[in-house]
Amino acid sequence: MPTREDAEGLDAADPLREFRDRFVIEDDGVIYLDGNSLGRLPKDTPNRIAHLLEKEWGERLIRAWSEGWMDLPLTIGDTLGQGLLGAEPGQTAIGDSTTVCFYKLASAALAARPGRTEIVTDRDNFPTDRYVLEGLAEQHGLTIRWIEADPAKGPEPDHVAETVNENTALVTFSQVNYRSAYILETKQITALAHDKGALTLWDLCHSAGAIPVTLDDDGVDLAVGCTYKYLNAGPGAPAFLYVSAELQPQLRQPIWGWLGRADPFEMAQGYIPASGIRSMLSGTPPVIALTALNQGVELSIEAGIEAIRTKSIKLTEFAVQIIDQSLQGCGVGSPRDPEQRGSHVALVHENARDLSKRLSDDGVIVDFRTPDVIRLGLSPLTTRYTDVYDGLDRLRTLLRKRP
Amino acid sequence: MPTREDAEGLDAADPLREFRDRFVIEDDGVIYLDGNSLGRLPKDTPNRIAHLLEKEWGERLIRAWSEGWMDLPLTIGDTLGQGLLGAEPGQTAIGDSTTVCFYKLASAALAARPGRTEIVTDRDNFPTDRYVLEGLAEQHGLTIRWIEADPAKGPEPDHVAETVNENTALVTFSQVNYRSAYILETKQITALAHDKGALTLWDLCHSAGAIPVTLDDDGVDLAVGCTYKYLNAGPGAPAFLYVSAELQPQLRQPIWGWLGRADPFEMAQGYIPASGIRSMLSGTPPVIALTALNQGVELSIEAGIEAIRTKSIKLTEFAVQIIDQSLQGCGVGSPRDPEQRGSHVALVHENARDLSKRLSDDGVIVDFRTPDVIRLGLSPLTTRYTDVYDGLDRLRTLLRKRP
Repeated sequence: MPTREDAEGLDAADPLREFRDRFVIEDDGVIYLDGNSLGRLPKDTPNRIAHLLEKEWGERLIRAWSEGWMDLPLTIGDTLGQGLLGAEPGQTAIGDSTTVCFYKLASAALAARPGRTEIVTDRDNFPTDRYVLEGLAEQHGLTIRWIEADPAKGPEPDHVAETVNENTALVTFSQVNYRSAYILETKQITALAHDKGALTLWDLCHSAGAIPVTLDDDGVDLAVGCTYKYLNAGPGAPAFLYVSAELQPQLRQPIWGWLGRADPFEMAQGYIPASGIRSMLSGTPPVIALTALNQGVELSIEAGIEAIRTKSIKLTEFAVQIIDQSLQGCGVGSPRDPEQRGSHVALVHENARDLSKRLSDDGVIVDFRTPDVIRLGLSPLTTRYTDVYDGLDRLRTLLRKRP
Repeated sequence: MPTREDAEGLDAADPLREFRDRFVIEDDGVIYLDGNSLGRLPKDTPNRIAHLLEKEWGERLIRAWSEGWMDLPLTIGDTLGQGLLGAEPGQTAIGDSTTVCFYKLASAALAARPGRTEIVTDRDNFPTDRYVLEGLAEQHGLTIRWIEADPAKGPEPDHVAETVNENTALVTFSQVNYRSAYILETKQITALAHDKGALTLWDLCHSAGAIPVTLDDDGVDLAVGCTYKYLNAGPGAPAFLYVSAELQPQLRQPIWGWLGRADPFEMAQGYIPASGIRSMLSGTPPVIALTALNQGVELSIEAGIEAIRTKSIKLTEFAVQIIDQSLQGCGVGSPRDPEQRGSHVALVHENARDLSKRLSDDGVIVDFRTPDVIRLGLSPLTTRYTDVYDGLDRLRTLLRKRP
């Protein structure tokens, strides 16, 4: 089994080790293995927000809207799209919450496939996606075809091929499963959906900033994702949405707000969608949150997604090794093939709920995910190999203490 | 006509004069008459945000969600509701953008009145409201009955009585018109809608923090409003929504997200709405923006809405007097009865667009509103009588210069 010296050696050799210094990290003994729920605070973010507040809002006031604010959803969207999502400019925008973005794109997709009556997703998709789809199905009289996949993985192309048919309007999955970390075959599943004339909507919440995403190359139609996990954009940061250039002319989203209209400040009668990705916007952009987001995105781009992915694989491998070799009663609920695994590890234990709480009391922050998963989120920009080692060491101690 | 000495005297006697010192105000000669587009930065806001970033996000990380963040949409909602909207607790929540909040409540209202085919609003309603309604009408096969009111006022009870009937599902207006500042007869119009079985949705964007709002007493069903105007919550700050306690059990909003579900962290199968106003939430709360919002709301509550309204009336009276008595070619496009007028004044001039730009070049920040309105937004917490005097004095100079 790996030793603490092994972990220290890996940290010393880590090409991303200096990025940890770019984040606010308290010297309080806490081991944070939950960056996939909420990424850490970049050190530059408070300064950038202070500048925004004092120099832009405070001094420029309403004039700042025409001095850059109004374009932030698209300029940051392009930066993110090109830097981390494999998306050429003009296809990515920052918008509302992930839930609202998902609702807008799912609604738009259904409207673009009139007469088709089915939505395909999986039982283990992230709850907010499932709930939004249930609402849309009820509102539009549609049926959801639920794929029941191996909980240690997720839907595979075979499942999709069996389920998608000429009635399918929309196929939608999380690219990286929020519990198992399984990475779906994005390109292959997208092609299978297209074969039947269906559209695809990918949730990238656990992908963006964690694995290389290649939306254009994969032929993806639609995508959304959150920015407060691996992109370190802050609690409740706004989400992004992607609509392929090819699909944009056919797509009409349901929330017709002034900022999605052509010439919004003419305030004219009648909604005419703006051209391009701007038509996906609805309300006034959340400027303070966008400023924090910008900083988080730039940090990940600076580190480089390939370097992030390389370290991510090594971190999750390291965790899997320790679980396998030294944690009695614990299993690995994530794929063992690193190419199929995102940046977290599902540690399965029958008392996962209780253990998660006791770990937290002991200063090791993890997530519990029903019914039996302790989720270890490993953020390559901030998580050290010694964090993985020490966190699992404390778990080992807890396991020994159990009556 | 009033003199500058008059303005100085009014400033010296202003009971709210010390509130101006609670805001960041540059000594740069700019006269800001646009606080109804973007309110000023409260001095305490940068500190509160810095504290949130460094002490909550930075140190507590994911733990902060259960230490208060998760309840912010409802706790701030209640503070705002009780302090400024005449709403008992449990009816107000902070959510998404105004546009998204308006969409959610308008959709929910239409779903609660199945079989009814008409929406009543007015041609001069704020664009984003009109566009959202056009989208919903198209999506649900409904008809909008457009009231064409006097542009210097807005819809009156007689218009509504003529237009509302047994087919009306929803009656929706801005309580204070964004151009004329006319205050609609909220209670009377609500009662007229109720007489025919329709629901009401009031847009409070130009009301909240500017005039006393009495939602419970007026029998209002639904309301939304933005917080970046008179509430000084910052650019693109999240909006609030109100659903009367009586209506809550009947109302189902369309965007079924995880944070509107009962027990969201169980991540269970099947959407079951949370009880009460929480069911109106969808995605993860925008914590940084909520922190700025909290500060803005508290400042207005501290000043007191009655004191704010008293000064607002005096400020707008002062502007109307100057326009009437000394600005050639300029008219007043707002009600002359102060009881019917919100906190801005529509100054009508045939070259309003050009004059607005020249005023801005000259350091007087106003809004142009098509086709012929220079909108003077007077924010009682920060606008001085001398600002009104000096701003209109510069306009007078510009008017004299014109060929």
